[in-house]
Amino acid sequence: MSHGKQFTLYTHKGGPNGWKVAFFLSELGLTYESIYLDFDKKEQKSSPHIDLNPNGRIPTIIDHKNGDFVLWESNAILTYLADKYDPEHKFSASAEEDKYKQLQWLFFQSSGQGPYFGQAAWFTWYHPEKVPSAVERYQNEIKRVLGVLDGQLATREWLVGGKYSIADLSFISWTNVGVNALLQDYDLSKENPHVDAWLKKMLARPAIQKVYAEKDALAKQ
Amino acid sequence: MSHGKQFTLYTHKGGPNGWKVAFFLSELGLTYESIYLDFDKKEQKSSPHIDLNPNGRIPTIIDHKNGDFVLWESNAILTYLADKYDPEHKFSASAEEDKYKQLQWLFFQSSGQGPYFGQAAWFTWYHPEKVPSAVERYQNEIKRVLGVLDGQLATREWLVGGKYSIADLSFISWTNVGVNALLQDYDLSKENPHVDAWLKKMLARPAIQKVYAEKDALAKQ
Repeated sequence: MSHGKQFTLYTHKGGPNGWKVAFFLSELGLTYESIYLDFDKKEQKSSPHIDLNPNGRIPTIIDHKNGDFVLWESNAILTYLADKYDPEHKFSASAEEDKYKQLQWLFFQSSGQGPYFGQAAWFTWYHPEKVPSAVERYQNEIKRVLGVLDGQLATREWLVGGKYSIADLSFISWTNVGVNALLQDYDLSKENPHVDAWLKKMLARPAIQKVYAEKDALAKQ
Repeated sequence: MSHGKQFTLYTHKGGPNGWKVAFFLSELGLTYESIYLDFDKKEQKSSPHIDLNPNGRIPTIIDHKNGDFVLWESNAILTYLADKYDPEHKFSASAEEDKYKQLQWLFFQSSGQGPYFGQAAWFTWYHPEKVPSAVERYQNEIKRVLGVLDGQLATREWLVGGKYSIADLSFISWTNVGVNALLQDYDLSKENPHVDAWLKKMLARPAIQKVYAEKDALAKQ
C-alpha cells in the first residue's frame, strides 16, 4: 500500500466497533492508515470494501506485513492482533484456560453488548417511528449488561487473568456510548461504581487518549 | 458429578444457542448431561446457574475432565471444545490464518445472526405491543444475513478451509429458526439456494440428526 503503514483499517468516524481496533493498534504501537467510510454514500457496501468484507460492516483490516491478510469482525481482529503481535502477553491472557475466558468475554461483548446497545441507538435516533417500549427494552438491557460487568469487577480489577487485556479493551467504546449517550441522567459512579472505576482507568491510558483525540478532531471537521 | 459424563451442559429446550453446543459434543462423541433450565422460573438467573455464569443466559458448560472448568458463550465453548478435543482438526481449521477466518465467522454468527434473529423472535412473539415496523426491520436483517452467507457459499462449499467446521455448525440452529419460524412463506431453495444446500447437508449429518431427535422428543413431553 502506498501509505507505507502496516495496516489498512476500514472504519467509520462514529461507529464504536472500528475504534476498538484503533485502540488496540495504538496500545501495540503498530502503524495503520484509517479509511473512514461514508455510510450515507453506502461506501461500506460498495467496492473496494465489500470485496474485502461481504458483510458490509466495519471494521475490516488488511495486514500488509502478512501477505495482505484480510480480517473483519472487531473481536476476531483483536484476537488475531494479540496472537500475532503481543507475544509477551502484555495485553492478552497467557494461561491456557484464561485464553478461553478472554474469548468468553469477547463473545459476550460482541453478542450481548454491541447489538443491544446498538438497538438502543437505532430506536433512539434512527427508527422511522417512535417506539418508547422498544427504547425502554434496550435501555434496560444496557443497564443489565452494566450490572453483569459490575458484579464481576466487584471482586477483580480486570475481567481476566489479573491484568488489563483485550477482554476489557473491547468494552470501552460501547460502554462509553451507552452511559453517556443512550441512557439519560445515568450516574455510573453511583449505579455501577466498579464499571465506572474500570472505565476511567482505561480512558486514562495514553494509547486510548491518543485515539479519542483523533476521534474528537474528526468530529470537529 | 454423579451423572458420570464428561460435561454438564446448562441449556434450554428451545433456545438455539444451547443446541449449538449439543451439536458439537455429538459430533465429537463426547458425553454430556443436559440440564434444561426453566426460564419461566428464572432458573437461568438463579443458583446454581447464576453462580457459574453471571450473565444468566444459556449455554454454560462444566468440563469435569478439566478440573470442572466452567465456560459460557456458545461460540467460545465451540472454540474451546475444538482446541481441546479435536486435535486432528476434523471439525476445525488447522492452517494458522484459517483459524482467524473461523473466528471471524463465529463472531459474525454471534453478533450478526443470533441477536438480530433473536430480536425478530422477540418482536414476533413476546413484545408487549405489536410493532410491525420492528418485526419488518428484523425480518429484513434475517434476509440480509442469509444473503451474506449465500454469497460466500456460492463460491465455496464450506465457510472456511474447504471443510465442514464449527464456523458452519454455529449457524445451524438460528438459520433453521429464522427460515422456518421467523420468516413467512420464505422459499430458501429459491431465495438463497447455496444456504439451502449447505443447511440440508448439515441437517443430514447423523450427529446433528441425533440431537434434533432429542430436541423433538423434549418438545413432545
